[in-house]
Amino acid sequence: MPLRPVSPVPAGILCVIGGAEDRTGSRVVLREFVRLAGGDGCRIAVVATASSLGEEILDAYDVVFRELGAGDVLRLRPESRTDANDPALAARIGDADAVFMTGGNQLKLTQVVDGTAFGEAVRAAYLRGALVGGTSAGASAVSEHMIAFGDELDTPRQGVTASAAGLGLLPDVIVDQHFSQRNRYGRLLSLVARSPRLLGIGIDEDTAAVVRGGHLLEVTGAGCVIVVDGSSAVSDAHMAELGAPLLVSGVLVHTLPAGARFDLTTRRLVDFHEENLAHQIASRPPEDDDT
Amino acid sequence: MPLRPVSPVPAGILCVIGGAEDRTGSRVVLREFVRLAGGDGCRIAVVATASSLGEEILDAYDVVFRELGAGDVLRLRPESRTDANDPALAARIGDADAVFMTGGNQLKLTQVVDGTAFGEAVRAAYLRGALVGGTSAGASAVSEHMIAFGDELDTPRQGVTASAAGLGLLPDVIVDQHFSQRNRYGRLLSLVARSPRLLGIGIDEDTAAVVRGGHLLEVTGAGCVIVVDGSSAVSDAHMAELGAPLLVSGVLVHTLPAGARFDLTTRRLVDFHEENLAHQIASRPPEDDDT
Repeated sequence: MPLRPVSPVPAGILCVIGGAEDRTGSRVVLREFVRLAGGDGCRIAVVATASSLGEEILDAYDVVFRELGAGDVLRLRPESRTDANDPALAARIGDADAVFMTGGNQLKLTQVVDGTAFGEAVRAAYLRGALVGGTSAGASAVSEHMIAFGDELDTPRQGVTASAAGLGLLPDVIVDQHFSQRNRYGRLLSLVARSPRLLGIGIDEDTAAVVRGGHLLEVTGAGCVIVVDGSSAVSDAHMAELGAPLLVSGVLVHTLPAGARFDLTTRRLVDFHEENLAHQIASRPPEDDDT
Repeated sequence: MPLRPVSPVPAGILCVIGGAEDRTGSRVVLREFVRLAGGDGCRIAVVATASSLGEEILDAYDVVFRELGAGDVLRLRPESRTDANDPALAARIGDADAVFMTGGNQLKLTQVVDGTAFGEAVRAAYLRGALVGGTSAGASAVSEHMIAFGDELDTPRQGVTASAAGLGLLPDVIVDQHFSQRNRYGRLLSLVARSPRLLGIGIDEDTAAVVRGGHLLEVTGAGCVIVVDGSSAVSDAHMAELGAPLLVSGVLVHTLPAGARFDLTTRRLVDFHEENLAHQIASRPPEDDDT
């Protein structure tokens, strides 16, 4: 199934993090984020709208990004659509090398910024070549269709998971986070059953899906990215009663650890040959920062 | 992939329950168990070896099975292989219409009874036409390859889930239980990645997989049976380091609510036509008790 690209094809990179990324130890995921942003001296805009912690969470990322080499950290926290439509605030995104959206409540993030000058500035930054990323709520918000909230630790059920419009940087995808740790298979399966065009992407904690060119996904970090492809499945999601367990037959699942690459357009592993997997995973050279 | 049947083809029915089945309310799953055992007046052998509760758990099932129509409940609790090789104890299985294995510790159950006179009597009962079932630990024990223990709430990882020989009533299958409620996707995915011939069957709480003729599965109860088919997947499970997240690409997943039927041999839904699914689920006549 062809993926409908953001038009034009984005020059930027997405770094979609499953939450609970290490901020004090080896910091593999955030180190990669800074590297992708350009490394030493880069300028990172941190958007803390989703978080209820406010200055505290801005302080935390300010410290860790500078420790990892960032030259400047812009602290941004629009709290209303009025704030988010302030041209001066939106302009601050203009020369950032990267935008990083914190965790918290993804509905608050999108309700404040989606469709505002600030939201458009984030999108423009991505299209012109900036790195755009987020963790937890900030990860969910990157896709066109966003999981708003929904039951965990349950079998797939009709209508118990709510979605909303996300920032639309990843079309044809729906992102879930804290994936294995909070048992979100059921809710992601229920969403792809209902919308089989959407590719479900569940990201584990301390793990990132790095997406280049709008479609080529590579995994970094401690866990897996779990891809849930319902495009060939059959389901009763169009008629099951509210709350009923769903029939969803024939969903393809891919669990992808660090180093694995997956094409969101073809919905297949990239460069995969069973006989040389070890070689691939162990010795694949790092990508250029600026592709 | 052809399923290797128990030879000869079993005349009995398996009723494999995902644990935490309702024992005080509508008791859908246990009511179905009694119906499949022959209904009013049937004779059910309850095997409590897995449980640490002993007489207490025997009392509980004694009461509920009699309330649901059983005419006789045999209370069996071999606690050692010496007990389990006692011909008199094994003979008590001989005229039971059904054998029901309680929850608890599946390794205790198989370590005490598998390969003993008692274990062979359970197998013989199944082959001659008895209903054999179990819940939780008693469910895991029916398959040839049994999950012994393993991490929950985690991504699939190398070598963190241990298996052992089960009672072997379901060949080519590996059963997990409390499935969605305890987030066991990761561990079941890791096992089918390692043994792609085995079909993974995850059973939700208060839900049963009823298997006729050794291969035709039908679901009853409140949740889903989740089938995990890794026969076409590729994986690094033959070489990943201990504890590392696994690459497993192309696993087919089926979530099956009450009424759905699945053939374990062909690994496909049975009688499924998208256009008449509602009709099938809503109005399929009950099966005969004695098929």
